[in-house]
Amino acid sequence: MHDFRSDNVAGAAPEVVSALAAASIGSASPYGADPLTARLTERLSAIFETAVAVYPVATGTAANALALSALVPPFGAVYCHDEAHILADECGAPEFFTGGARLIPLPGAHGKLTPESVARAIARAGVGVVHKVQPAALSLSQATEAGTVYTPAELDALVEAAHSNGVAVHMDGARFANAVARLGCAPADITWRAGVDVLTLGGTKGGCLAAEAVIFFNPAMAEDFGFARKRGGHLVSKSRFLSAQLDAWLTDDLWLRLARHANAMADRLAAGLCGRPGVVIEHPVEANELFVRLPEPALTALETAGFQFYRWDDGLIRLVTAFDTPAAAVDAFVKIATDTLEKA
Amino acid sequence: MHDFRSDNVAGAAPEVVSALAAASIGSASPYGADPLTARLTERLSAIFETAVAVYPVATGTAANALALSALVPPFGAVYCHDEAHILADECGAPEFFTGGARLIPLPGAHGKLTPESVARAIARAGVGVVHKVQPAALSLSQATEAGTVYTPAELDALVEAAHSNGVAVHMDGARFANAVARLGCAPADITWRAGVDVLTLGGTKGGCLAAEAVIFFNPAMAEDFGFARKRGGHLVSKSRFLSAQLDAWLTDDLWLRLARHANAMADRLAAGLCGRPGVVIEHPVEANELFVRLPEPALTALETAGFQFYRWDDGLIRLVTAFDTPAAAVDAFVKIATDTLEKA
Amino acid sequence: MHDFRSDNVAGAAPEVVSALAAASIGSASPYGADPLTARLTERLSAIFETAVAVYPVATGTAANALALSALVPPFGAVYCHDEAHILADECGAPEFFTGGARLIPLPGAHGKLTPESVARAIARAGVGVVHKVQPAALSLSQATEAGTVYTPAELDALVEAAHSNGVAVHMDGARFANAVARLGCAPADITWRAGVDVLTLGGTKGGCLAAEAVIFFNPAMAEDFGFARKRGGHLVSKSRFLSAQLDAWLTDDLWLRLARHANAMADRLAAGLCGRPGVVIEHPVEANELFVRLPEPALTALETAGFQFYRWDDGLIRLVTAFDTPAAAVDAFVKIATDTLEKA
Amino acid sequence: MHDFRSDNVAGAAPEVVSALAAASIGSASPYGADPLTARLTERLSAIFETAVAVYPVATGTAANALALSALVPPFGAVYCHDEAHILADECGAPEFFTGGARLIPLPGAHGKLTPESVARAIARAGVGVVHKVQPAALSLSQATEAGTVYTPAELDALVEAAHSNGVAVHMDGARFANAVARLGCAPADITWRAGVDVLTLGGTKGGCLAAEAVIFFNPAMAEDFGFARKRGGHLVSKSRFLSAQLDAWLTDDLWLRLARHANAMADRLAAGLCGRPGVVIEHPVEANELFVRLPEPALTALETAGFQFYRWDDGLIRLVTAFDTPAAAVDAFVKIATDTLEKA
Repeated sequence: MHDFRSDNVAGAAPEVVSALAAASIGSASPYGADPLTARLTERLSAIFETAVAVYPVATGTAANALALSALVPPFGAVYCHDEAHILADECGAPEFFTGGARLIPLPGAHGKLTPESVARAIARAGVGVVHKVQPAALSLSQATEAGTVYTPAELDALVEAAHSNGVAVHMDGARFANAVARLGCAPADITWRAGVDVLTLGGTKGGCLAAEAVIFFNPAMAEDFGFARKRGGHLVSKSRFLSAQLDAWLTDDLWLRLARHANAMADRLAAGLCGRPGVVIEHPVEANELFVRLPEPALTALETAGFQFYRWDDGLIRLVTAFDTPAAAVDAFVKIATDTLEKA
Repeated sequence: MHDFRSDNVAGAAPEVVSALAAASIGSASPYGADPLTARLTERLSAIFETAVAVYPVATGTAANALALSALVPPFGAVYCHDEAHILADECGAPEFFTGGARLIPLPGAHGKLTPESVARAIARAGVGVVHKVQPAALSLSQATEAGTVYTPAELDALVEAAHSNGVAVHMDGARFANAVARLGCAPADITWRAGVDVLTLGGTKGGCLAAEAVIFFNPAMAEDFGFARKRGGHLVSKSRFLSAQLDAWLTDDLWLRLARHANAMADRLAAGLCGRPGVVIEHPVEANELFVRLPEPALTALETAGFQFYRWDDGLIRLVTAFDTPAAAVDAFVKIATDTLEKA
Repeated sequence: MHDFRSDNVAGAAPEVVSALAAASIGSASPYGADPLTARLTERLSAIFETAVAVYPVATGTAANALALSALVPPFGAVYCHDEAHILADECGAPEFFTGGARLIPLPGAHGKLTPESVARAIARAGVGVVHKVQPAALSLSQATEAGTVYTPAELDALVEAAHSNGVAVHMDGARFANAVARLGCAPADITWRAGVDVLTLGGTKGGCLAAEAVIFFNPAMAEDFGFARKRGGHLVSKSRFLSAQLDAWLTDDLWLRLARHANAMADRLAAGLCGRPGVVIEHPVEANELFVRLPEPALTALETAGFQFYRWDDGLIRLVTAFDTPAAAVDAFVKIATDTLEKA
Repeated sequence: MHDFRSDNVAGAAPEVVSALAAASIGSASPYGADPLTARLTERLSAIFETAVAVYPVATGTAANALALSALVPPFGAVYCHDEAHILADECGAPEFFTGGARLIPLPGAHGKLTPESVARAIARAGVGVVHKVQPAALSLSQATEAGTVYTPAELDALVEAAHSNGVAVHMDGARFANAVARLGCAPADITWRAGVDVLTLGGTKGGCLAAEAVIFFNPAMAEDFGFARKRGGHLVSKSRFLSAQLDAWLTDDLWLRLARHANAMADRLAAGLCGRPGVVIEHPVEANELFVRLPEPALTALETAGFQFYRWDDGLIRLVTAFDTPAAAVDAFVKIATDTLEKA
């Protein structure tokens, strides 16, 4: 049966693995001076339709925390959703890398922040008052932790609330591919054209082994980033092995094809469960995650059958699909769930 | 021609790449709860003949800095050789991870510290005086930055100088395999049996893509290490991909076979150059590095022929061999050098 | 007219100033090795009826942040009221001194936390999960930021919620004197007998010039504190000048007499305003602060007359009395306010 | 008898104590918004003949570490003399406040750095190389730890070595008054006119109780300093009490008169001992410190007589004079020393 706990339980896409094997032969300059890293930067500049500064690292936590450290002084405040990964799942890495900046959780339905709550929080912060941590960054997750996706218009308004107050904007793109695949927009439309300053682009959940990229749309902001990355132990010596993964993943739209599959599997789960008695779908399904309430007998039956998923509170579970989730696994899941529901 | 700049210009061993490919299929629990990570811990416990706590990470800088952070308070001092990697080549990562501890450089011939200089430094430190940073760790590189290797007896004496003063001992084992291969001893003999508290075992330079392991011989010292690693962004989500590399590398003595080859290539270089007019070999060749002075015409000829190496001061160069250095490349290097020398 | 903005607008008590002058003559050992510092420790041990470890510093922010740093690892969480000074008014000093620990705000009526909300927060924290910051300290303000006072029974229950989960307890006692004066209890009853681990005892607001003391009831917890204080720049070289202030302030119950006066002035303000039309007293008046809503005409009249106070939202103001607040100033304030109210 | 251990064993000047007493009456705005702080800034701007930004704090360690934190990124290097107070006597406070920058000790006769050694160190640092900490500040002590004084010309050359490499200059002026008094120059001549960027001006050792000032000659460099000071717990709430000390100390050249006395007492010690058999004066006596070697019988006799001083290695002692050192104490010291020497 299938493991729906997270997209990080998946393996790696064959194309990425092959690229890694190909890159493993022969010598190459270390620390980012290799041809694959150069090609990756070109590729990302083409994808984003602007010259970007690219810094590959091995984990999403490192990518987020390092990116924030480029935007935020130690006495700064970072506004984020109260379910944001940087707040809930990184053991204080943002605090560590920023030298002790503060994350300010803000509420928002379906994992999304609103311009109003951001503006209100900044207005109350006490800008310029030495007793107060100072507004410095807004961190947005795209796709969100609730499996929803900000539209370009929503992003415009959020960025405006930040930029008009001198606050920089970071995007946690651990599932950025899923968002782009869903929206069908240009990657630029939901990043720098909307005003995002720095993106952490996640490859790991989307089919790489361990590869993320910190992408600066304004390379001037990255002035000290090389030192911060090295100092954090995140400059991989045989750097070609990070770049090879990302390069293969981004070639010929593989990243979007894999994301489309994952999204489709989430849709298929939702379609199979939606409308059944006792089933409540908690958030719009816009990426590769489904948050759904099922009656306990259904959950028990699914677990007995060998399916794995995280239980939230009160019958709410999270199902995450990945680039390699088989449609058959989805169908089997739906069948067991609906069979149990009908018996009830 | 060949690139002798460092062992991190090498690719990866085919066995390691194959293991990675095999591990890429199917689901596995993330964050170290996978079977490969469990097997790696068992394997390392067998290799070191004691139950060890193992924490894989992607870079040597991370491994060293995290390991030191487990031994040293923010007001602590770390004694190390004045050419130590932690001091010279990690952009202050130890300071970052320890919260601002201080590295105290000590001199020593051929890259080696002496018990006397360690004892003297600790004696002068002002133990218990609040104005002074407090002796907390001794960091030893094995093999050293000069390509030499500490004997078990040398390590015993160094550890005694530290432990008798309440100072813990860290070993930077970026080239630990080369040291074991050279000494022909049990890995335990130059680690916990000699009193080393924590080892950073380097796989990357020895044939992995990007894989190091922090190994605690006293697991109680690792109590908080999981949090520190996560907080530093060094807990890889698809952790099997670090463990698979190290596991394959450690299987059937592959790590030692690869290290023996690298060492043999360094020996071959030394044998080819030693005794020639104008050639001065700076340090004993005990691992996979050769520090040698050659007349400028020889250096020019070698560079013209396409060989790459780092120039230190005054005609001194560093040549590093790796698991994949071809004997033919060594022989070609020696031939060009000696031909030039004879012409001079 | 009078300045009710804060008790830190007050000057210093004559007894304290005289002690400082007396201490200014002749030589004394620096850095805490002087007789006055020894006497202060004895005096505080007598007052608290147990042997305490005492560390004077010049500011309350330093006292709080240093105290927390002794209880909390960098990956730790500190629970505090959402209006706590450590959260709202110290520009991230706790984050700085702890190496990036996180403050978790909890709500509570009248500035007080409840054992239920503390227990719930700890239960949700994910103890032992490496992705989560770990519960490490509970910080209580006594008196609270709302001018209320925890009873010994309330403290017992709060400490129990913390200690039963392995969480240490810090008390921010910037206005501890006011709390003791109000409760009429032994200082021990609301500190170590209730389980408080470390107290920051504030002298500055109570009549000193600049003097606070970090007090450990379990001196073993203070093992590294001397280094932390020095490293933070908070070890005053002519330490007698901090100790002299606190020693004089604590002699013959001066601290409690001064606090009783400040409390009485707050009571007098409350008595004069309570029950008048349009007046809402927001929190019970249990220390030396009054939070009161007054109609705008009254506020305007008071400001016109030269009174100073902080305006919170919506007509809510804060009035703080101090050891030197004249009864005549209180009466004049009440008269203007009530005259205006009657006219309305 | 007298305590020559340090100038921080002295009490406080009566004028300073009186000013503190005068300031203790009545209300004043806290946190630096008081009239005395405004007056202090004006006074220092006049003394330094330029508009300065002034930040009083209570300790020299805080002043130094905070000042450096304004100049140096976490990945930065600070060059200083190998006997500098920031290196030897602050328990790593500079590392703490800078977020882990590194102090690089440089040698130099009589406590003084040379432009050559500074230039050489910067040249070897690896500017722009991500593996290396980056040259960021030069810290000079004036007067030095050896009791010597840099001339304006020496400072010009040192600053040039720094500024020409983009390195900022900090001056530790714990004994700045002694240097100015000795040189008879304008304070500007050995600070901003020589290119010094930030000065920590020490009042404590010169006659204050606990008062230092961080002085920026380019206020733009101080942009974030208010936040750093608050966050470090170094913003004193009743700030008038720091400013009152410094203001009185700087009034009518009191600071220089006190320093001249201290210097004169050091000269008197030197004059009394110089040339006697067995006496070696280690460094030129240019401020208020004497480093002298005396035969052991003389040291024993002096200690038996009740004199206090620090013993360095091998018969070398340090004698520090202060604003309140009596000439009679100096003469008594000299008499016992010379009597013993004559007997030998």
